[in-house]
Amino acid sequence: MKVHGVAYRSIWPIDRRAVAIIDQTRLPYEFCTTQLADWRAVATAIASMQVRGAPLIGVAAAYGVALAMNEDASDSALDHACEQLLATRPTAVNLRWALQRVRLHLAHRRGAERADAAWWQAEAIGEEDVAMNRAIGTYGSALLAQLHARTGRPVNVLTHCNAGWIATVDYGTALSGIYLAFDAGVPLHVWVDETRPRNQGLLTAWELAAHGVPHTLIADNAGGHLMQHGQVDLVLVGADRVGRTGDVCNKIGTYLKALAARESAIPFYAAVPSPTIDWELGDALREVPIEQRSGCELRIVQGLDASGRRAVVELTGPSAAIANPAFDVTPAHLVTWLITAKTVRPCAGR
Amino acid sequence: MKVHGVAYRSIWPIDRRAVAIIDQTRLPYEFCTTQLADWRAVATAIASMQVRGAPLIGVAAAYGVALAMNEDASDSALDHACEQLLATRPTAVNLRWALQRVRLHLAHRRGAERADAAWWQAEAIGEEDVAMNRAIGTYGSALLAQLHARTGRPVNVLTHCNAGWIATVDYGTALSGIYLAFDAGVPLHVWVDETRPRNQGLLTAWELAAHGVPHTLIADNAGGHLMQHGQVDLVLVGADRVGRTGDVCNKIGTYLKALAARESAIPFYAAVPSPTIDWELGDALREVPIEQRSGCELRIVQGLDASGRRAVVELTGPSAAIANPAFDVTPAHLVTWLITAKTVRPCAGR
Repeated sequence: MKVHGVAYRSIWPIDRRAVAIIDQTRLPYEFCTTQLADWRAVATAIASMQVRGAPLIGVAAAYGVALAMNEDASDSALDHACEQLLATRPTAVNLRWALQRVRLHLAHRRGAERADAAWWQAEAIGEEDVAMNRAIGTYGSALLAQLHARTGRPVNVLTHCNAGWIATVDYGTALSGIYLAFDAGVPLHVWVDETRPRNQGLLTAWELAAHGVPHTLIADNAGGHLMQHGQVDLVLVGADRVGRTGDVCNKIGTYLKALAARESAIPFYAAVPSPTIDWELGDALREVPIEQRSGCELRIVQGLDASGRRAVVELTGPSAAIANPAFDVTPAHLVTWLITAKTVRPCAGR
Repeated sequence: MKVHGVAYRSIWPIDRRAVAIIDQTRLPYEFCTTQLADWRAVATAIASMQVRGAPLIGVAAAYGVALAMNEDASDSALDHACEQLLATRPTAVNLRWALQRVRLHLAHRRGAERADAAWWQAEAIGEEDVAMNRAIGTYGSALLAQLHARTGRPVNVLTHCNAGWIATVDYGTALSGIYLAFDAGVPLHVWVDETRPRNQGLLTAWELAAHGVPHTLIADNAGGHLMQHGQVDLVLVGADRVGRTGDVCNKIGTYLKALAARESAIPFYAAVPSPTIDWELGDALREVPIEQRSGCELRIVQGLDASGRRAVVELTGPSAAIANPAFDVTPAHLVTWLITAKTVRPCAGR
């Protein structure tokens, strides 16, 4: 997607000696790319959410392994880098999936051949992500076009967190369909949840504004009210891990929107590339490890000060007790449809 | 309740020539009282949320009329002040109720007698608020004690917004029972919703901390997840307007918590003094005017800067489209109990 008229992806390799990313902790205030020169820098970027979004952290981790193999292509170095990268974020399954896939391809290779294979795999995972998201977008776009054709009105979508192009390598998952529908002339408007505590809604608003898509930012508290009053036609989100029965683990607060959608008979869609599906996962509510992040994420709010510089304020003192679970599980019975790269289908758990 | 060891109320008259308030827009960063010298200052304080909370704005408006009658006790001055005060906040019914009550008492009085009667009424409404909240607290406290007796565990309460002593003249509505139960030795812990966009959860955390009540601040998004995992025993909130069938209009986001509570079979309580009940109100979803407040409330976040001074950051530029509905309606069928000053009863709408 384009930033100031220039086509970007969210991550790209630099001569197989480093990987470049957009530093998402500075968005939407500063658009700034940075290079990660070794796997430790990749691990730090994932943990600090300089790169974020389930698909993107999978790709970033794969590049991390490639960087590690540049340094030392031994089995022990491979094991260590994979373990450390896996430990950065426990919830999204794409990270585990990408690391497993890269390891499998490296298992019978050694030395420079192993490093080459790692780069090749990381690049392939990235390209597949782009292709899958594009395919998800065609299905998502078709759904939005159908809904518009049925009602004759602009389609009002509510989305939570950021499942846009910067959460993936390109296009996005939930937002991919919105971009394609918008480009095809389907009239639509997006309600953008602020998504406390990390305010990823600001990233979504930044993406949508850059593409010209009409949207309105709202507090996370507002969605239920809007649904009660017929102002939302569908909820469309991404996912960090989807179980085999269709339970959707996604950014904290998604579950509340799914409850409200059901109550108002509004369809709830999750857009899911295949690496986000965890076929080993049965009951997501019991089994998915929910990351507990620092209370500082809620306590310290970033924005612009009066002189337009990036600045922070602290909502409370450092001694305040704060809990910050980063994800929740929307049980399959609340999920109307899953949009994958291959099909749109009613959720199996319903 | 006490602030730094000194007993305060949230509003009090000064020699029947002014009214003093705690400026709640500066809390929890600065505790600062200010005097309102005329009814226009009262109207501004209500609209800007220097005074807030359904019970308190009712009392503040009554004092506003008294101040207006000091200036000019004519019928036209009375009409004008009441109209302007009523227009400050459309949703909470306490404002309308208090103005109607004061007007009724002034109808057949003139001049200095009218001004005296207005002050007397405003003071009486304030005293009645304190007595009602105290009574609500005894019922709320008994419920919490019963719950503890049944489970043997500390009681985990989730609350939204601030229904504490500063939202009333004293004691609070939802928090009144928590204070009394805590004082009676019932082990409890309160999950405090941040309550975007105005972050009234910080006021609740400030109140609870001052009284020593264990609590944890959470993003509004987190409550559903906590309920799914058995970490909430009951939801306890205040209300801005309750219909005759038990629909509860309260701070935006309350409805989402009520949905999650029902889904996890957790009781949802609203603590309601009688002036909050609107007997003219049938279907609250259709009939309650929901205040749409400025997008600036979401866009501009207040906190402390690095030097500990009150400061703000802007989350987005001023051109961002933002919707900010301030209240929502929880239909009666999601409300388990209403706690009033006279009784605790299952909600009539269930």
